[in-house]
Amino acid sequence: MTDEIEGVLIDLDGTIWKGNQLIPHADEAIAHLRSLGKRIVFVSNRGNWSRRMCYEQLTRFGMAVTEEEIILSSTVTAQFLREHYPLCQVWTLGDKGLREELRLHQVRLAAVPEEADFLVITLHETMTYQDLNLAFRAVSHGARIMATNIDKTFPNEHGNAIDVAGMVGAIEAATGRKVEFVFGKPTCFMAEAALRQLQVPPNRCLIIGDSVESDIRMGRMHGMRTALVLTGNTKPSQLDALRAKERPDYVLDSIGDIIRLGKEIMQ
Amino acid sequence: MTDEIEGVLIDLDGTIWKGNQLIPHADEAIAHLRSLGKRIVFVSNRGNWSRRMCYEQLTRFGMAVTEEEIILSSTVTAQFLREHYPLCQVWTLGDKGLREELRLHQVRLAAVPEEADFLVITLHETMTYQDLNLAFRAVSHGARIMATNIDKTFPNEHGNAIDVAGMVGAIEAATGRKVEFVFGKPTCFMAEAALRQLQVPPNRCLIIGDSVESDIRMGRMHGMRTALVLTGNTKPSQLDALRAKERPDYVLDSIGDIIRLGKEIMQ
Repeated sequence: MTDEIEGVLIDLDGTIWKGNQLIPHADEAIAHLRSLGKRIVFVSNRGNWSRRMCYEQLTRFGMAVTEEEIILSSTVTAQFLREHYPLCQVWTLGDKGLREELRLHQVRLAAVPEEADFLVITLHETMTYQDLNLAFRAVSHGARIMATNIDKTFPNEHGNAIDVAGMVGAIEAATGRKVEFVFGKPTCFMAEAALRQLQVPPNRCLIIGDSVESDIRMGRMHGMRTALVLTGNTKPSQLDALRAKERPDYVLDSIGDIIRLGKEIMQ
Repeated sequence: MTDEIEGVLIDLDGTIWKGNQLIPHADEAIAHLRSLGKRIVFVSNRGNWSRRMCYEQLTRFGMAVTEEEIILSSTVTAQFLREHYPLCQVWTLGDKGLREELRLHQVRLAAVPEEADFLVITLHETMTYQDLNLAFRAVSHGARIMATNIDKTFPNEHGNAIDVAGMVGAIEAATGRKVEFVFGKPTCFMAEAALRQLQVPPNRCLIIGDSVESDIRMGRMHGMRTALVLTGNTKPSQLDALRAKERPDYVLDSIGDIIRLGKEIMQ
């Protein structure tokens, strides 16, 4: 006999959408969870988006959601800086969503890289040599390195694309300094931000996601129940090779299965 | 007019001792601070020692101190794991002081590297290929990487010796994974642990240390007053080259100067 699930953490890329496509029945699954009275939070390692951008994407897909229900690695980074380093100035290497999120949390942005106490790195899909070099100057002048997340690649329409780890690698190699803070799944910073929003203890939470490394791992490390969906990163052929500590409690073809299996999983 | 100093954070290597030698008058300086009623905490990036080992060293030098007044990067790492990852198992690469400190904080140590959720790396002065390879196995089986601190070198009787960054580099290069958590000075984890022990707000704290990068930096990032001593890492010739954000409020030839200058600095 296990505890009834009251809170559900839901990944976005590969679980709710894939590129610009909603995963079939994802919207109905969310509506179903709401009809059962479950509390919901969306958790994503996207550090190059702001909550507002993510809210607009979910709304475009016809899903009812509030900005508070969205926790991105940019959100968690911004919350951490505001709470632990209120005096410090920040330079960024990343798409503009990160800066929007930092500004919203009253994080101080440095006017020039030389004044920064921290460089925050996230995915930067329009990055130029100039951007990289400004970040290099920040670290050369003593800024310490943070990364919203440390994912190596993400799937796009051409297969795989370079992710944050590539940007971090460039700066580490050029400066000889190492990243010191990472905030995305599966870290405790992300898990605790989600639990704070849900106001539900971890043993009454279920996390649904497509990544063994970030979603299932985070759930297991924090004592949540875990459901892996096969609409993203993980192929059915990989399931047998999973180590004991990586194994999800449930494997679903897609988040749409929640409608059919909800009762069984939530009890 | 500034606030009176009530709490003093004091570095150890290069500030209180150098190798096995007490820095002249360091013991008298501490006694003087105590006679003025100041609260004291010793803060050190040594992650390969336990508090007990450090307590014994200070006692050997004839200094009156409690274990609670000693905060090492091993202490902060152990506190973090206990607070944020109570369910997780840990493998270590480092001298035995780290494991002693983890055990004291009820952190779960993995029986074999394959079961570890985290690898914690610190300085390991008796490291063998076998130790390195066990740590490699932990990360190969999914353990995420923490480092007590990320100092590159430390001074010993032969000049400079390889520090934690060397051990971290070996594991990162072999596994392709990156360190995700660092706990030593100048991070907020260390600063907040010290402030919690002192029970004094940062604007009423003075930090005394020999390192611009870790001691002065931590003080400045957290709004403390800062005093650099010239008995360790920093040479007088380096002072002119310091950037504005690195400059200490005071420069002392040694911590012994506190006896003479205490009144001026503490007001």
